[in-house]
Amino acid sequence: MAKKPLNIGMIGYGFMGKAHTNAYATVGNFFELEYEPVLKALCARNAEKAQEFADNWGYESVETDWRALIARDDIDAVDICVPNNLHKEISIAAAEAGKMILCEKPIAMDVAEGEAMCEAVEKAGVNNMVWYNYRRVPAVTFAKNIIDSGNLGRIFHYRANFLQDWTISEDLPQGGEALWRLDADAAGSGVTGDLLAHCIDTAIWLNGGIKDVSAMTETFIKERVHQDTGEVQKVTIDDACAFLCHFDNGSLGLFESTRYARGHKALYTFEINGEHASIKWDLHDLHRLEYFDHRLEGPMRGWRSIHVSDGDHPYMGNWWVPGLNIGYEHSFVHQVADFIQGLESGTPAGPTFRDALETQKICDAVLESGASRSWQDVQKADV
Amino acid sequence: MAKKPLNIGMIGYGFMGKAHTNAYATVGNFFELEYEPVLKALCARNAEKAQEFADNWGYESVETDWRALIARDDIDAVDICVPNNLHKEISIAAAEAGKMILCEKPIAMDVAEGEAMCEAVEKAGVNNMVWYNYRRVPAVTFAKNIIDSGNLGRIFHYRANFLQDWTISEDLPQGGEALWRLDADAAGSGVTGDLLAHCIDTAIWLNGGIKDVSAMTETFIKERVHQDTGEVQKVTIDDACAFLCHFDNGSLGLFESTRYARGHKALYTFEINGEHASIKWDLHDLHRLEYFDHRLEGPMRGWRSIHVSDGDHPYMGNWWVPGLNIGYEHSFVHQVADFIQGLESGTPAGPTFRDALETQKICDAVLESGASRSWQDVQKADV
Amino acid sequence: MAKKPLNIGMIGYGFMGKAHTNAYATVGNFFELEYEPVLKALCARNAEKAQEFADNWGYESVETDWRALIARDDIDAVDICVPNNLHKEISIAAAEAGKMILCEKPIAMDVAEGEAMCEAVEKAGVNNMVWYNYRRVPAVTFAKNIIDSGNLGRIFHYRANFLQDWTISEDLPQGGEALWRLDADAAGSGVTGDLLAHCIDTAIWLNGGIKDVSAMTETFIKERVHQDTGEVQKVTIDDACAFLCHFDNGSLGLFESTRYARGHKALYTFEINGEHASIKWDLHDLHRLEYFDHRLEGPMRGWRSIHVSDGDHPYMGNWWVPGLNIGYEHSFVHQVADFIQGLESGTPAGPTFRDALETQKICDAVLESGASRSWQDVQKADV
Amino acid sequence: MAKKPLNIGMIGYGFMGKAHTNAYATVGNFFELEYEPVLKALCARNAEKAQEFADNWGYESVETDWRALIARDDIDAVDICVPNNLHKEISIAAAEAGKMILCEKPIAMDVAEGEAMCEAVEKAGVNNMVWYNYRRVPAVTFAKNIIDSGNLGRIFHYRANFLQDWTISEDLPQGGEALWRLDADAAGSGVTGDLLAHCIDTAIWLNGGIKDVSAMTETFIKERVHQDTGEVQKVTIDDACAFLCHFDNGSLGLFESTRYARGHKALYTFEINGEHASIKWDLHDLHRLEYFDHRLEGPMRGWRSIHVSDGDHPYMGNWWVPGLNIGYEHSFVHQVADFIQGLESGTPAGPTFRDALETQKICDAVLESGASRSWQDVQKADV
Repeated sequence: MAKKPLNIGMIGYGFMGKAHTNAYATVGNFFELEYEPVLKALCARNAEKAQEFADNWGYESVETDWRALIARDDIDAVDICVPNNLHKEISIAAAEAGKMILCEKPIAMDVAEGEAMCEAVEKAGVNNMVWYNYRRVPAVTFAKNIIDSGNLGRIFHYRANFLQDWTISEDLPQGGEALWRLDADAAGSGVTGDLLAHCIDTAIWLNGGIKDVSAMTETFIKERVHQDTGEVQKVTIDDACAFLCHFDNGSLGLFESTRYARGHKALYTFEINGEHASIKWDLHDLHRLEYFDHRLEGPMRGWRSIHVSDGDHPYMGNWWVPGLNIGYEHSFVHQVADFIQGLESGTPAGPTFRDALETQKICDAVLESGASRSWQDVQKADV
Repeated sequence: MAKKPLNIGMIGYGFMGKAHTNAYATVGNFFELEYEPVLKALCARNAEKAQEFADNWGYESVETDWRALIARDDIDAVDICVPNNLHKEISIAAAEAGKMILCEKPIAMDVAEGEAMCEAVEKAGVNNMVWYNYRRVPAVTFAKNIIDSGNLGRIFHYRANFLQDWTISEDLPQGGEALWRLDADAAGSGVTGDLLAHCIDTAIWLNGGIKDVSAMTETFIKERVHQDTGEVQKVTIDDACAFLCHFDNGSLGLFESTRYARGHKALYTFEINGEHASIKWDLHDLHRLEYFDHRLEGPMRGWRSIHVSDGDHPYMGNWWVPGLNIGYEHSFVHQVADFIQGLESGTPAGPTFRDALETQKICDAVLESGASRSWQDVQKADV
Repeated sequence: MAKKPLNIGMIGYGFMGKAHTNAYATVGNFFELEYEPVLKALCARNAEKAQEFADNWGYESVETDWRALIARDDIDAVDICVPNNLHKEISIAAAEAGKMILCEKPIAMDVAEGEAMCEAVEKAGVNNMVWYNYRRVPAVTFAKNIIDSGNLGRIFHYRANFLQDWTISEDLPQGGEALWRLDADAAGSGVTGDLLAHCIDTAIWLNGGIKDVSAMTETFIKERVHQDTGEVQKVTIDDACAFLCHFDNGSLGLFESTRYARGHKALYTFEINGEHASIKWDLHDLHRLEYFDHRLEGPMRGWRSIHVSDGDHPYMGNWWVPGLNIGYEHSFVHQVADFIQGLESGTPAGPTFRDALETQKICDAVLESGASRSWQDVQKADV
Repeated sequence: MAKKPLNIGMIGYGFMGKAHTNAYATVGNFFELEYEPVLKALCARNAEKAQEFADNWGYESVETDWRALIARDDIDAVDICVPNNLHKEISIAAAEAGKMILCEKPIAMDVAEGEAMCEAVEKAGVNNMVWYNYRRVPAVTFAKNIIDSGNLGRIFHYRANFLQDWTISEDLPQGGEALWRLDADAAGSGVTGDLLAHCIDTAIWLNGGIKDVSAMTETFIKERVHQDTGEVQKVTIDDACAFLCHFDNGSLGLFESTRYARGHKALYTFEINGEHASIKWDLHDLHRLEYFDHRLEGPMRGWRSIHVSDGDHPYMGNWWVPGLNIGYEHSFVHQVADFIQGLESGTPAGPTFRDALETQKICDAVLESGASRSWQDVQKADV
């Protein structure tokens, strides 16, 4: 059966542009879908680099102005892989042009921007999604299934961290093209939007909403040279952020993120403790899920390391055989597969812009709490 | 060479009474010391049980009134293994009687009590120590040595938790003889004094003082039946407590403790991240120390699991041969060995009452912060 | 720069056909190479299934007779992904037709077949390779680099195993299309050729040749129903095989493989112990390499878990960022990349047919030793 | 209730003398037993060192001639902690004197000696035991209980190793007082009797008898200086030994031991794979038992790490509280406890001399197989 094309217009070709493109190129080989993503156009300001990336990956055409891309009739979906300070403008314009939108996370610079984006996509009625890809690591999806089955009982604790160590050197610049994540003007915040946002998205997906937060933020290196200007600037991002919180379900939360934890490259971990059972996960060994079930016969209890590579684990039946791992990039493939299945079924795959706005609200509350040294309530949707 | 006797008067025969007694009975077989502890007298209100314990361990005599014990001339050192609400009175009386004091942790119900105890022992000039035994787990002592060597460089992060799961059942009583740790009247607090106090003692030993804290405390089960009275009572201890903090050295701290973390029995872990290196430890595998050194040749870097069982590891030369583990109880043996060596050398082994008071100040600030939902400064010693 | 095409003719579409095809389709996106593999033709007896596979992956055409495929002028390289009993005939014909050959492992049913294949490719002067893909797992390649650097000193021990548990059920058939690995007529042997061959290839690559072996083979389930005929047959494959051996360098070897090790899906592990250092690896966590270096300062020694995901680890600079894993399939991508670089450089990437023949010699000796219950010398190449 | 004395006469004060003495001294404090071991006499040739050891541990008297010890009326049980070449003579004399005997492992230099010892103790009707202490590590005992419950189903595989690295240096002497384990004249063999004997004792206890073996032995350093004579001698012990075997129950065995595995101090591990479940254990983390149960719901399967520290685990109710580890020395305490309970119940605790003879038969077959490069049947008891 011939598949329907889903014409992709990609904006950006950095780390995420590469990860998303690979997902579009690969998904059809492993998942049976009605739609086949077509790499229609790649958009970036630097024409030469854009062409090189397009050639490598097989994009049919190149644009250097995102407005031109959005204006094209042959684009079904726009993928936004540019710094956070551009998410809002592009999203609203794309929505108004009737394009589906797949936007990198965090949704925006702050809640106000995110709110405007939600309104735009909802008014336009276009499919929309934010790339919180860790929901689609099979072990994380499996954790969601276990929790939804009620196996854990009443939840008491949720804790997560995302630890890195790549900005410890004082020689690292503050901002620049490839390093815009270090510049608050482009990124909005430091580890809070970059890393904690991932932890928060997973947390509210697994454990529900958050009521209030008490945060501590820190910038360890106070001044750095900006890559573009060569001038010494005050560093305005948060190098580290930790917060306490209460979930709506009464459980306690503890979150931490830093780029100054020597020895950790991308140590995203979470743990959830329930009345009957507990779950742990760690991105450094992303194919394993740790599970403890108290209801087993007493002396036989123990933490179980589930090697999430069997055919009856989420997504894994589409890949190889039991015992053989997939990696990081596959989470994006799964997200595209789910996005397309959402088109087919009419039930959009999350996280939508509206879902991602909830994470943004928590991020904003965290930053405000860190600045004011006080507990902050998380803004709630009107009911 | 004949050893000098160190006559011990032990008050209490519970879990800690057993652990300390075993340490006194064993230490001389494995450590060459000038003094040999002598199990002179065991004191407890229940004469029959006291006699049974004394017979089992070889105590020479029994007392049922701690004042009588303190009054005896043949007692050199008093060991206090009774609920926290009795620490102050016994300590002060023992100090006034000129006895050395080895007191269970936490030092007291609050800072005011602890302050009075410090003044008493200092005025009396008696040797004093608090049983924060985890400093003497060989892997923890080894961590201290590594940190003191400067291997880690500037410190950015310290995090610790102490997770248990033994009070999840609603059927557990609130307080009672063997369960006084669940009764705020006897214990002063819940996990904060029982578990976090351990984490804090180790932390300030390894990483220095704490400036301020923001805490969250929770009591998950609000009412329980008291074991003694059979009446339903409001539960007044903290079931869980987490806090953020700043250390004096500029590093960030994150602490958590709970008795509602399903799957963890006594999971005391800490991690410290420095500019050059990081260290992790876990009580469930107390014979291992995890170490990461960034200064190694790039691709060869990794977390190293040091099996702390070699003759050149702290205390281990006194035990068996490389590769063979010791256990929990040995930390108490080491503490007695160090206490005695402190007598010999004239440099008292820590933590002294004064050292333990620093931990109490942090505990009090944590509880106050949890109650007031605000950052609290930790009370500082006058300089 | 335009890339030169490398026209692939793939024979077979099973598990390996899929893995190889994915590698051809992906390699150019991540590795800069002069040649770009082109999926020219897919060959399989079942025309319908062949067409379906070809459509999914973008093969330009389909053949149902491998002789027709080999006869085509527009095919540069033939990839053989069919049962072992067909390797020889196809390889020799392809060589005679001047095609490069990439053949699945093991090279053949036995040494005699393998010898004939080697002679054919060498006579024809065509590039040839056997798909022992585990050499290209980055952690394994890194192990090779460490060993070649001399870090380990004199080698004393090498041990490897490959443990699975998928044939424990008595209901599993003996042989059939998807299960030809269970049929000695198609596979030549059981775990020896399927699993131990992998262990042996890695071993001789890392530690050199093997002199002699003493093996034990076992078939736990003696009779099974054949999938095609429905008749009960004697099972003639080895369900399990273990052997002792001496390496040429004087070290001792211990190998084991089974499909009856409950709890293990694809647990390929190896360990090598040298005078100064040791290395361990485990396919279930294929992105980690364990390393112990005795030359470090005494008390700091420990097994180091190297997360092989940094840019300075083999192949990893072509993928994502530090801390993010790749998976099983990437080993095939790397093998294609190396094969193509071998074409460019003129130094063929191994293992060549001739290299793979060494593994076959050891497999034959192992099977003979198991059958005869005696030590067997491994046949050596004439010097 | 007053306990009955069990008067111990200890021969030897080395590593094992210390471990056994500690067990006698400690057992009564933690286990309720009818008999209390009394440290009656310590025997060793060097009077001064003997007296020092006796003083430290509280032995009431010292002997320098083991015949004198055995002749004493006030000795109930003789504990033999001297080199293996003295086991037979002392045991037989002690049996003839009507003493109970607790003999270090391996039972003897060879089967002939062991047979004579068995006959002597059986003729004399004295209680007898060999110190294969690892049976009493709680996790190992728990493994036994799980296996005996039938949880594993039909057994397919058993594998064990005991890896050390302490004799790699060429500067180590061959033999001498503290190093008699390196001298075949005193020890009988190298790793086979010292280390593999432990693996074999556990294996036959858990998995039943062994039918036949094919072994490989190696001496890596061929000549060393003898500590006593200063002369260069041929090294006659086995530095490494590995063997394949068949168990009586049809399962396959694989055993390995060496003192040349860099990075391993005392890595005794075993694994047993059954139809339904598998078990793994590792002395380096002796408080954990790994368990995999295939009968769980498919996707929830995983290896479970049981922290064997709960009150319902073997022996652990006598120690501390859940989550707190015991160590190596406790296995000896448990063995004394079981020995005494055997006296009370009339059912002697194993392994008896007769049990240990089975291990000796396998060791002898292994050494013979290694020497002859051929499969050897294990000598079977007459039925």
